[in-house]
Amino acid sequence: MHLDEKWMKTAINLASAAQGQTSPNPAVGSVVVKDGRVVGMGAHLKPGEAHAEVYALQMAGSHAEGSTIYVTLEPCSHFGKTPPCADLIIEKKVKRVVIGSVDPNPKVSGTGIGKLKKAGIDVTTGVCQTETDKLNEYFFYAMKYKKPFITLKTAMSLDGKTATNSGHSKWVTGRAAREDVHRDRHMHDAILVGVNTVKRDNPSLTVRLPEGGVSPKRVILDTKLTIPLQSKLLHDGEAEVFIICGRNADKEKERELNGLVNVNVCRMNQESIQVQSVLTYLFKNDIHSVYVEGGSEIHASFIEAKAVNRFITYIAPKLITGRDAKGVIGGNGIQLMDEAFNLTIEHVEMIGSDIKVIASPKGDE
Amino acid sequence: MHLDEKWMKTAINLASAAQGQTSPNPAVGSVVVKDGRVVGMGAHLKPGEAHAEVYALQMAGSHAEGSTIYVTLEPCSHFGKTPPCADLIIEKKVKRVVIGSVDPNPKVSGTGIGKLKKAGIDVTTGVCQTETDKLNEYFFYAMKYKKPFITLKTAMSLDGKTATNSGHSKWVTGRAAREDVHRDRHMHDAILVGVNTVKRDNPSLTVRLPEGGVSPKRVILDTKLTIPLQSKLLHDGEAEVFIICGRNADKEKERELNGLVNVNVCRMNQESIQVQSVLTYLFKNDIHSVYVEGGSEIHASFIEAKAVNRFITYIAPKLITGRDAKGVIGGNGIQLMDEAFNLTIEHVEMIGSDIKVIASPKGDE
Repeated sequence: MHLDEKWMKTAINLASAAQGQTSPNPAVGSVVVKDGRVVGMGAHLKPGEAHAEVYALQMAGSHAEGSTIYVTLEPCSHFGKTPPCADLIIEKKVKRVVIGSVDPNPKVSGTGIGKLKKAGIDVTTGVCQTETDKLNEYFFYAMKYKKPFITLKTAMSLDGKTATNSGHSKWVTGRAAREDVHRDRHMHDAILVGVNTVKRDNPSLTVRLPEGGVSPKRVILDTKLTIPLQSKLLHDGEAEVFIICGRNADKEKERELNGLVNVNVCRMNQESIQVQSVLTYLFKNDIHSVYVEGGSEIHASFIEAKAVNRFITYIAPKLITGRDAKGVIGGNGIQLMDEAFNLTIEHVEMIGSDIKVIASPKGDE
Repeated sequence: MHLDEKWMKTAINLASAAQGQTSPNPAVGSVVVKDGRVVGMGAHLKPGEAHAEVYALQMAGSHAEGSTIYVTLEPCSHFGKTPPCADLIIEKKVKRVVIGSVDPNPKVSGTGIGKLKKAGIDVTTGVCQTETDKLNEYFFYAMKYKKPFITLKTAMSLDGKTATNSGHSKWVTGRAAREDVHRDRHMHDAILVGVNTVKRDNPSLTVRLPEGGVSPKRVILDTKLTIPLQSKLLHDGEAEVFIICGRNADKEKERELNGLVNVNVCRMNQESIQVQSVLTYLFKNDIHSVYVEGGSEIHASFIEAKAVNRFITYIAPKLITGRDAKGVIGGNGIQLMDEAFNLTIEHVEMIGSDIKVIASPKGDE
């Protein structure tokens, strides 16, 4: 058992290196071991390309016969963009399969294992499962609840402000924290903002890291479809853009926007945008995780809809002051303290000279 | 030298046990050692009572002769409420004196050491000085700058609010954090609030700990002297009350207030209350440290006057939300982010389920 964990941790390492670049597929790693020697290693790198097991078995070549394959996620048994991995494992005469997590995707769950067992292969599951589950936390959540995992990010001063009296907000946090945000963007399938953020900042909403990175899709909530046609993110071609609008939004504007490459307008059935409908729409578009980046009214609507799974708050070592300076969360608010949304602090750390707090809704799974 | 540090640490321990209960005097500990054996220990416990050296030498009795006395602060050489400790040390024929910090009080600084040396006693200074300085941080600051050390305490939700839309604020933080506040109150000479806090909450502003504790003096900033005469803290007799008002405040009200036991009204020379004048007044009244507890406009005036030495912020794991919910710091605010008051985060810890952040003004000594 100790050895199983050792090799599974290697497979986890392989998978984690590709986290954030495999969506809508999960990140998966695999190691093939024979006679106490690694003979193959692989990871899924990009949707449409080979699965982890394929790379690992390819590397193993003839050594695959009689070997043990470690894989962080149950091998698939269905024809997707690639042939089923379970079939390949059987064909290569692998003796034993050690699995971290069972696939949460109803199309696959348990069927890969069944196929392997039926072929007489020894199957062990649940090895390092806490870690292998964590590896694809967003994917597992999305498969289970049919909606994306929502991370809400805010940045404020130590006195809880996000801009000065005059609305000036560049920058609240330091460079290290802003780079950390780009790393978290890379890990999510989509970034979501309100149209006012687009109008005010004309942001790219891409991942700009010294090392590169994958830019998530951009989602803009824009009830009345007032997004300026010259907005940078509509033309940069860095990633797909989804613009969500209410039932009564301007049809001519919708036509113009849909005419742009990479831009999709989605008209809701109601006049105002309902958070839960947005989540359903995004899930249907293969978006399993969303990084919500404001502004304060968007934050409030997600919190009020109880749609947030994780809160990330950067707190800068400065005081902006001002009784009218803007806070990070708007909305109509509450009357009594008992109505506040309770959280559990999961993690506090320093990122450069800023504090990063990770919290989850209290009582959340 | 190693032994000097060992015994000095014991003296520091004695002193720290009495921190918060010796003001306006500093906390001081002393150990008398002879032939590698402790023969006396003492600490200053209460203003007006014996100094640390007196207790320690008393315990040592005849063993004092030829001994080494460790004392966290330079022995006094002047007649205050008690006779000079330097004279007692000479009289008891102590051979060597080991000192942590030199006294910052100009009335004493260096003169105790001079007297001892003149009597032929071997004197070592600066042993564990970082720790002995820290022991009386507030006292040393006050002696040096002729004004009290200011700690500004705020408590807010993770979205930077201190009350709901309707003004409801009980409680933002949990029990452990509120108890921590009472421990910090105990360490300060005075608590300071604005009159609106008194009107709204009718607070006691005392130390209420399971173990007891010393209640600091209460300072109320009340420009127009509108404090209700029936306010709890005016009658509870728990600690002195200083009410600071502007030049034009009602004289009849002043007379009424001054008629109450333990209540002192201080009329400023200007119409509005100037923070620096308040600090000077408090220092003259033997207040060496002030714990500022709000409200948000009081906070702003102290920050704008650059009068704060330490910021303590409790952050509760909840979201109050609401674009109009009150933040922790008011004031007119700033225009550009560059004008923000920069801080250095010194310490972050969990107190129960709340986060406690300790910060200091950037570039502050």
